[in-house]
Formats: sequence, structure tokens, C-alpha cells
Amino acid sequence: MQVTFIWQEQVEGRWSQRQKQVTASGDATVLRLAREYDIKINATCGGRGRCGRCKVVVQGPLNEVSQMERQLLTKEELAKGIRLACYARPQGDIWVTIPTGETELLQILTEGSDQEAAVEPDIVKEFVAVPEPVLEAPDGDRERLLEALAGAGGRICQIPLGVMTRLPEILRQSNHRVTVTRWREHIVAVDSGDTTGELFGLAFDIGTTTVVGGLIDLHQGKELDVAARLNGQAAYGADVISRVEYASNGITHLKRLQRAVMDTLNGVISDLHEKTGVSPERISRVVVVGNTCMQHLALGVSPTYIARSPYTPAFSRQFDATAGQLGLAVNPEAPVTFLPNVAGFVGADTVGVVVATGLADRNGRVLMVDIGTNGEIVLSQGGRMVSCSAAAGPAFEGAQISCGMRAGEGAVEFVEIGEDVEVRVIGQTLPRGICGSGLIDLVAELLKVGIIDETGRLQDASELHGLPPKLVERIRTSENGAEFVVVWGKDTADGKEIVLTQRDIRELQLAKGAIRAGTMILQRILGIRDEDIDELLLAGAFGNYIRKESAMRIGLLPKVPLERVRSVGNAARVGARLCLISQAKLQEASRLAKSMGYVELSGRPDFQEAFMEAMLFPQSEEYLEFAR
Amino acid sequence: MQVTFIWQEQVEGRWSQRQKQVTASGDATVLRLAREYDIKINATCGGRGRCGRCKVVVQGPLNEVSQMERQLLTKEELAKGIRLACYARPQGDIWVTIPTGETELLQILTEGSDQEAAVEPDIVKEFVAVPEPVLEAPDGDRERLLEALAGAGGRICQIPLGVMTRLPEILRQSNHRVTVTRWREHIVAVDSGDTTGELFGLAFDIGTTTVVGGLIDLHQGKELDVAARLNGQAAYGADVISRVEYASNGITHLKRLQRAVMDTLNGVISDLHEKTGVSPERISRVVVVGNTCMQHLALGVSPTYIARSPYTPAFSRQFDATAGQLGLAVNPEAPVTFLPNVAGFVGADTVGVVVATGLADRNGRVLMVDIGTNGEIVLSQGGRMVSCSAAAGPAFEGAQISCGMRAGEGAVEFVEIGEDVEVRVIGQTLPRGICGSGLIDLVAELLKVGIIDETGRLQDASELHGLPPKLVERIRTSENGAEFVVVWGKDTADGKEIVLTQRDIRELQLAKGAIRAGTMILQRILGIRDEDIDELLLAGAFGNYIRKESAMRIGLLPKVPLERVRSVGNAARVGARLCLISQAKLQEASRLAKSMGYVELSGRPDFQEAFMEAMLFPQSEEYLEFAR
Repeated sequence: MQVTFIWQEQVEGRWSQRQKQVTASGDATVLRLAREYDIKINATCGGRGRCGRCKVVVQGPLNEVSQMERQLLTKEELAKGIRLACYARPQGDIWVTIPTGETELLQILTEGSDQEAAVEPDIVKEFVAVPEPVLEAPDGDRERLLEALAGAGGRICQIPLGVMTRLPEILRQSNHRVTVTRWREHIVAVDSGDTTGELFGLAFDIGTTTVVGGLIDLHQGKELDVAARLNGQAAYGADVISRVEYASNGITHLKRLQRAVMDTLNGVISDLHEKTGVSPERISRVVVVGNTCMQHLALGVSPTYIARSPYTPAFSRQFDATAGQLGLAVNPEAPVTFLPNVAGFVGADTVGVVVATGLADRNGRVLMVDIGTNGEIVLSQGGRMVSCSAAAGPAFEGAQISCGMRAGEGAVEFVEIGEDVEVRVIGQTLPRGICGSGLIDLVAELLKVGIIDETGRLQDASELHGLPPKLVERIRTSENGAEFVVVWGKDTADGKEIVLTQRDIRELQLAKGAIRAGTMILQRILGIRDEDIDELLLAGAFGNYIRKESAMRIGLLPKVPLERVRSVGNAARVGARLCLISQAKLQEASRLAKSMGYVELSGRPDFQEAFMEAMLFPQSEEYLEFAR
Repeated sequence: MQVTFIWQEQVEGRWSQRQKQVTASGDATVLRLAREYDIKINATCGGRGRCGRCKVVVQGPLNEVSQMERQLLTKEELAKGIRLACYARPQGDIWVTIPTGETELLQILTEGSDQEAAVEPDIVKEFVAVPEPVLEAPDGDRERLLEALAGAGGRICQIPLGVMTRLPEILRQSNHRVTVTRWREHIVAVDSGDTTGELFGLAFDIGTTTVVGGLIDLHQGKELDVAARLNGQAAYGADVISRVEYASNGITHLKRLQRAVMDTLNGVISDLHEKTGVSPERISRVVVVGNTCMQHLALGVSPTYIARSPYTPAFSRQFDATAGQLGLAVNPEAPVTFLPNVAGFVGADTVGVVVATGLADRNGRVLMVDIGTNGEIVLSQGGRMVSCSAAAGPAFEGAQISCGMRAGEGAVEFVEIGEDVEVRVIGQTLPRGICGSGLIDLVAELLKVGIIDETGRLQDASELHGLPPKLVERIRTSENGAEFVVVWGKDTADGKEIVLTQRDIRELQLAKGAIRAGTMILQRILGIRDEDIDELLLAGAFGNYIRKESAMRIGLLPKVPLERVRSVGNAARVGARLCLISQAKLQEASRLAKSMGYVELSGRPDFQEAFMEAMLFPQSEEYLEFAR
């Protein structure tokens, strides 16, 4: 049996396709074969069939799809021939396409994007027959074209210099029959002949970490393909605040950050070109979402004052530029719309989520929470919306936690406590530390068994009765105070114990307290009790990875029945797509951003009290009432 | 006596100031002193006190201003301390500033620009106090600024990216008190504090040979200073048609020509900066005139089809761009308006002349002629205007004439015939050839004495009776046919005779016939006889240098009493200035260009017949009726 692996490799900054044919024997999985021949397939669980990350696209005869694959892959993915390399076994000659490392980032979740819109973009194409010039009428090419457009009922338009340059040649090449791409009163392109059949746009979500772009067919309203890359600004700081600081050092630094993210966007565009064959110059419309700071940096506008009280952005409403102004490698005259921001820390990405989830139009009371270093929260009641941003700090990313780490290889991401502690780590490795979702799990479990009380205090072993002895052993007092041993040194990668200290619990309480206080304040403003919340939407990647039960158990989220909680994944980009294909949605985005109330938590006199209250953990009884 | 010379020298493309101190003794003129020490002062008459070109600015004691200087210098120039170096004699220590060679080009004639306009430019400045940001209202800087403007009764505006970049800093530096420069709905600049006291613009006339720019105070409507440079496109061809040909070789060539003329414009801007101290970034509005082809090339738009029937420009109406788009070194957001063109060969320069001379509003019937390789002609009757372009060819520039040359050193520029031929040449040199104005003079004189008849035939000496013998000697027949010796070989620079051949006369007939046929056709269309013409305006440099009597004698111009003929000089740039300081004039320019009739002569069935008729010279009697 021949197995042909196909993958992408980055050589000197450019992606190129590689291929290798190997001979398979026996019952080896695709993953084992790849490892044998040094072909890299990402599998964070080490091939144990648990992480679901070793996705490959296979053509040719394979074994049946396993139970686990049915669980870890979506129906859509299965329909596309996607399998997990650790389960797939060739039954004949097969072709295995391996997604690139960056494509791996594409954990694009569109579950929540149940909004669709009538396809009616604000950019249109018109086929026009322009009158040929005659001796008697000295009208210019531009004037005859505009008159032909106006005759067709069009508005008075402007033709930018970039389009003018080639206009005389295009008119004559095409026998004066051309297709005009028009955005409002701006002519974006004039093509030879009739090209009205195709119209392409791009929807971008510029995240602090990752940039995701979708190529959209603006006639069908469909996403043709998606590509993602790491935001090239990462070299200048991992989080928003450090980027703001860097940009505040002057125009050179600001321009460097702008260039970095544009390079990333152009990389995504080039990936999409490779995937779809649609060349960039045929793309004539772009819509961008991102947090307020990312929007500023992408435009090269100083974000300095976003980070200083009173947290004022340079612009908050929709911003239109052209691709050429930004250095975006599509048609340089293509309009690029940055969706409006609500405030310095409630950005266009949140507006995108609101549009994608139809939050304003949903019946009932809906709470949307996007958990991160800054948690963006929107509460909606019959169309009225209020929003806020809660500064949770980096605890959810594992920072400022004694054994904390990012959600990478070796991170404890799942904890269960019965007779003893059971953990699950990311990747085929011994535990190295604990990540955000692991921390939430851990504390939730410790609350369940009573090792942590509702004030967050680690109980002394002597105070606990009837606790399994293996758990009791883990409770101890070190020089730093009380702590709980999560993983003993003999079971960790570096031999050091992974512990949860009293201080760690306090850090978590601060983080979850900030988010919860935000939701409490918004609920208070609209007069909505926890039990009145009809839907609780979790946006973004983190919201997708945490266990909802645990998040609720520690009081990160208000107490609502679990079935009302739903992850909506990367709804921000879906919002961008909807605005791209529908001018009604685009206008709605502006309207929503403008009408959405914003509450600056630091300006609320009742915030401190709410924060204090929210730092406490829910008591067992009130919790149990809801959770199953 | 110490004489300090100060002048500009171009070193590696940059102008820098040079200085030299010399000791003067006796009664030497400044010009002689300069020559002694190898310091260049332009004096085309060789220091004979006739050309008036050796202008210098002198500080310190000098001899009295001579009679001739009073004639050759304007009162304004004299008031500024300008003297002619060939007359000025130091009477103590003096400082002599020598204008650069390029400034020398500044024979800017504004005699005809009797139009003025109420100063009301389309660009305005507003001082605004922007509300400071507060915690409760997360509006961006842009939004608060725009709201403050709208509150002040302003329109909804757009702030371009270039202005946004620095907006947050400017607002905070200035305590939120700023000056907004607004053009229509575009914000061109936001300055710290109150800068409403100053507002600057530029008026450019882009000629095929020379670019002239004036710095305008938009509050006063006055020209602060003027600078001129040779059009850098000259390297790519001397005339319009060769530039079009070059540009038609592809986008690289086109861009090269655009770059060349922008470099020239930027040179003029830098000269104006030096002269006035007004730094380029404070300039926020630009208006440009030029022939249709120069307008295309300055914008980087292909002029290919202007040169091919049906002579269609890429654009004919007003074109607005920004300085940044063009690479013009003023505020990059400054709007740059190219005045409208009427047709491929009746450009914005002609529209500028029409605006400057108020042609449309003048009572009576006015004929405006701009003589050149292409003669632009406008005839106006009570506001109705028709225009045409007559292809005169290069005869007026001395080309295709056996002893023809440009109006440079050694060119016969003036001819008088009495007992013999008397000529005047440009510069202190023996004659080398004959230029356009000399040719017109010569033929006019030969017509007067009957050596040429009305058909243009050089008479045989035998046919002429009572002619002075010295003239008879000059009439002869060579192998090329009949010819007239203008200057004998012993009196020329190279020992070769300067002759006028029968063929030369035919060339002149073709050239003047084309112009005259153009005016005849326009007169025919409006039903205006020669004697009905109330005013005849001669625009441009050539119209200023030819002797009106001679031009009329050879039938280049229609027969009107001499006092009705007037040179309006470089009225095109005056028109640009008026449009810059008055939006009413700018709108008028568009209206005029649109309403002005255009006649394509090659499309008129009666053109050939008119051309044939116009090639003839007027008979003596009909001529004498008018010309004294």
C-alpha cells in the first residue's frame, strides 16, 4: 500500500507544497506512519485519540470511522473526508493531506452563527456599454462612462486615480463594453467585458493572537474558504496593553505594528489565493472586526489613550479606508470597513458577535460573555443592550498562578476529584503546569468536596471529616501558607510538584470576580436576576474550551440551568461576513454599536461592592439547585 | 568698495546659496564686475542695456536709476531695489543678489488679468473646542471632534487616515482646542491651537516647457510670491506629441513622466518655501491649469488617445486628487484640483485664461488667441463661447524654416525694411538664424515693400520697380528656387547667409493659415465679421513677444484696429489663482468649460476652403485701412 503525504512547508517565509510517498505495511495508523518518516502531524495528546487535533484529509480506502472520531469530529468534517490520523488506517493506496501548523489554528467555531442575511452587499457590479467617442463631442472617457452609468439610473460617481490610469486602454480593449464595480459613489474597478458573474470579498477577524480571514462569494453570500495566521505583532508584545505601550513610543513604532499586522493579513490573503485560486486583485470589498486596539493598530492610528483613563479610543464609529491606503494586497481601491467599536475595551469584535448572534433581535434576556484578559459582556433585553468590559487579568491564561501556564503541551486542562485527583494534560507528556480551564476545573472540584469553602479559603485537613485519605494527604502547609498538591513530583515532567496555593485561589477569585461583577452590574441595570436569563452565550475560544459546569460552579457565570448555556465560538468573524454580504447588517452594526449602552465599571460606585461579592464562591446548596 | 555677490547654484540636484566678495574699482558696472570674476548674470543682449534681463537685487549705494532702467523695469521692481546689472554702478560697499537661471524664466505677464474675485475659497479653517473625554461616554476622539464641528453648524465630515494618525496627540497637546481645515466634507488638517490666521494655497500653470507656481494667501487672495522651473519632462520630448508618444509606451514610461513633472512642481514649492518662509506642509489647497496633455501626465493618466482621432482625453471635467496621491510635497491631504479641459487640445490653461479675462462676462465680441504649436482660440459673444484648436505646427518656433531657430541667443527677433534690411538679434552676438517673431516681422515687411505678393510668392527682382538697390540685391534664385537674403554671410556668426526661401514663406503660410482659418470658422459660426470684433486678446508668451502690427499684416490675426488688440500674458495661472481664492470662480470654470462650444476643425467640411483662403496674405489696401 502506498501512502502519499501532502503538506505545506514554509521556506524563507513562503509556503510551498511538499509531497512524500511511503509504503505502509501491517496495521499502522496514518499518524504512526508519518512519525516513522519524520512527517509532522500535530497531535497534542500524543496519538492517544483524545485531543482530536491530528486531523487529516484522506482520499482512498480506509478503516471505518471510529466511535471516538464521531465524537471529536463534526458531521461536516466527516463529510469532507476529514479523519483523525491516530485512528485512520490505510486499506489501500491513499493520499493524506496534512493541514499546516497555522491552519491548525483554525478552530473556527461557527456553531452560534445561526444568523443569516439576505445577500445584498453594498458593493455592486454593472455591465455598461459606453458610447464611443466622436469628433464632434470632445467628452473624456471618464465623462462618457459616468454618463452611461447615470443613464442606467446610477448615482454620480467618482473614479479614483488608480482606476483612471488604465481606463482609456480598458475601454478600447473591450470595445467600450466594461463592468463597473461600484461602492456607494466610488468606482472601485472597471474591467474589460462582462465580469458581473463574480464578486469577492474578505471578512477578517484581527485577534491579538490570531488573524482569521474568510474569502466570501458576494453573490452567494457563502464563505469559499478560510485561512488563519498568527498575528505578526506578537513580536512586539503578547497582549493588548504591551502593544499599546510599544505603539505609544512614536510614529515609527506605530507604523511597525501596522506593517506587521498588514503582513499577516496579506499572508492570509495569499493562503486564500492558494486554496481557492481567486487572485487577490479580484477582491473588491473587505470588512474587518477586532478589538478596539487591534482596529487602531491595523489602521496605523495611535491607541495610546485607550490604555489610560478615561480609556478613549481615537475613533469609535465605523471606519472606512481603501486597501491601497492600508497596504492590503487586494484591489487597492477596494473599500475596507472596520466595524464600529463601542468603547476602548468593547470593540468591533463584540459588535460582530452581537450581529452574528442576532442578540438585539432575540426574544428574552440574553447574556453574552467573551472571557479573556478583558472580558467583554453584553446583556440584552428585548433589543435594549448594555455592555461592559471586565479586567480579569491574565489568570485565565495561567499567568500569576504559581504553577500556571498557557494551554500548551503539558498543561493540566481537566481535573476530576473522586477518591483522588485525576488530571488530563494537553499532549503526550507528563504534566508541567495548569492552564486556565484546568484551574477552573480544579477549583470547582475542590469546592464540591469542600476543600475550599465559599470564601475561597483552603480548609485545614483537620477541619475536614470523611474525606478520602489520598485527598487529605494533598492538603498541607508550606512556608507560603496553605496549599493543595495537584500532581505529585514523581508524576510531573520536571519532578516538581504542581500545587494550588491559597494565593492562586485568590488570583482566580479576582479574575472571576471581575467578570461576574460585570455581569452583575449589567443585570442590575436592566433589573434581570440570574434565573431570568433565558440564554447565556459564551463567545470566543476560551468560552469554548472551559467546562460550563465548572465555570458555573465557581461562580464565573451567573446561575442558570446548564441547557441555557451555549458556546457561539468565533462569532465575531461571522458578524463581519454578514456585514460584508448585507448592507442592512452593516448598517445594523453601526446602529447597534451606537445604541448599545456602555458601562465603565471603574466609574460605577457600586462596582467595588459587587466585585467583593462576586469574588466569593457560590454555596453548594444554591449551586446544586441548578446544576443538574 | 566691496561688492558681495550672492547667488544660487544647483549642486547634485539641490539648490544651495553661494557668495563671493570682490573689490570694485573705477566705474565698472555690476555686470562687468561679475564677468571679471566669472559670476554668471544672464544678459541676453550682451550687456548693451536692451534686453532688460540682467536684473539683480542690490542693497547699498548705487548710481541713479537710468532712463533705460525706468523703461525696462516695472515700478514694483524698482521699488524692490531691482536694478539692471549693466547699468548699476556701485558707489560704496554693496550686496548683489542674483536671481537663479530658473527665476529668469519668470517673465510672468499679468497685464491682462484685470479680473478679481471676492475672496471666498472652498477651503476653510475653523477653531473648535472639542469636549474632553469622560469615563461615562466612550466616544472616540474623532466622534467628539466631528460632533463639535457639527454643533458649530458644520457638515458631516470625514477625517482621512493621514490626519487620524496624529489626532489623539494633537487634541491632548492643545488642550482639546484645535483648528480644523475643511474642504467640502473632507478634513484636510487638524492643528494644535488657533491657526485660523493663516491659510495658504498654490496656483500652478504646468506648461509643456515651463512650470510656474504662485503661493497664495487665501485670506487676502494675494499672490505672496512666484517661482518657475523648466518642466522636467523636457528630457522625454520637447513638445506635447512626443510626450504622448513616450507615455504611450506603457505604464513605466507614463509614471516616469508623472514623476518628472512632480519633481518640477516640488522644486517650485521648495523655491517658494525659500522665498517666503512658508513651509510646504502649511499649504492646504492647490489648483492646477495646463493643457489637456500636461494635466493627464501630471495625474499619471494615459494621454494616448488625445493624439489619435477623435482626440479623446481620458477625462475632460474637473479632476480632484490629493497631494499625497500625486506625490506633491505639501500637506498630503491637501485637495489638488485640476481645472476642466474643453477638449483634447483645448485645455484647462485656456479655461484659466477665460476665467482670468472674464471672457464670458465681457460685453461685445471678444476673440482670444493663444498662439503656439497648437493655437487655442476662443470667440465670445455676449457670454456664448466657441473654441477650437488650430494645428499651426512648429514654424512659429523656428522649426521647418531653412534658417529658423528658437528665440535664443543669435536669433533675429525683429526686422525692419527701409533702404535696406535692419535686424535685431537676441543677445550680444552676430545673427545665427531667425525665430518666430522675426519671421513674422520679416514677412510683414516684405509684404509692405511688395517683395512678397498676397499669394506668398517671392517676386522676381525684375518685376519690382523703384525698389532700393540694396533690397534688389538680396532677391535671387538659388538651386532651391527663389530666396531673399536677410543677413549676408559677412554679418552672421558662422559666415553663412541667413535667407528666407519660397518654401519658408509657404511654411509660414501654412502655420498662420491654420490659426486664421480657426478664427474664421469660429467667426462664421457666431456670424461675426472681422470689423465686429470689439477686443482681440493675445494670451501666452508668444502673443506677448510678436509685433501686433506684423501679425496683423501677414493675416495671422483678423483685421481689427490695433488698439483693440491686447496681450493678456500668462492669464492661465491668474485663472488658477482666481479659482483658488474663490469657489464661485471655480464653479464658473466648470460651468464655462461645459458650456463652451468646441469645434473640431478637422471635422468641418468648410475648413479646407477656409484654410486655403487664410493662407493668402491680406492685400495692401485692406490692410492699410486698419493699420494706421
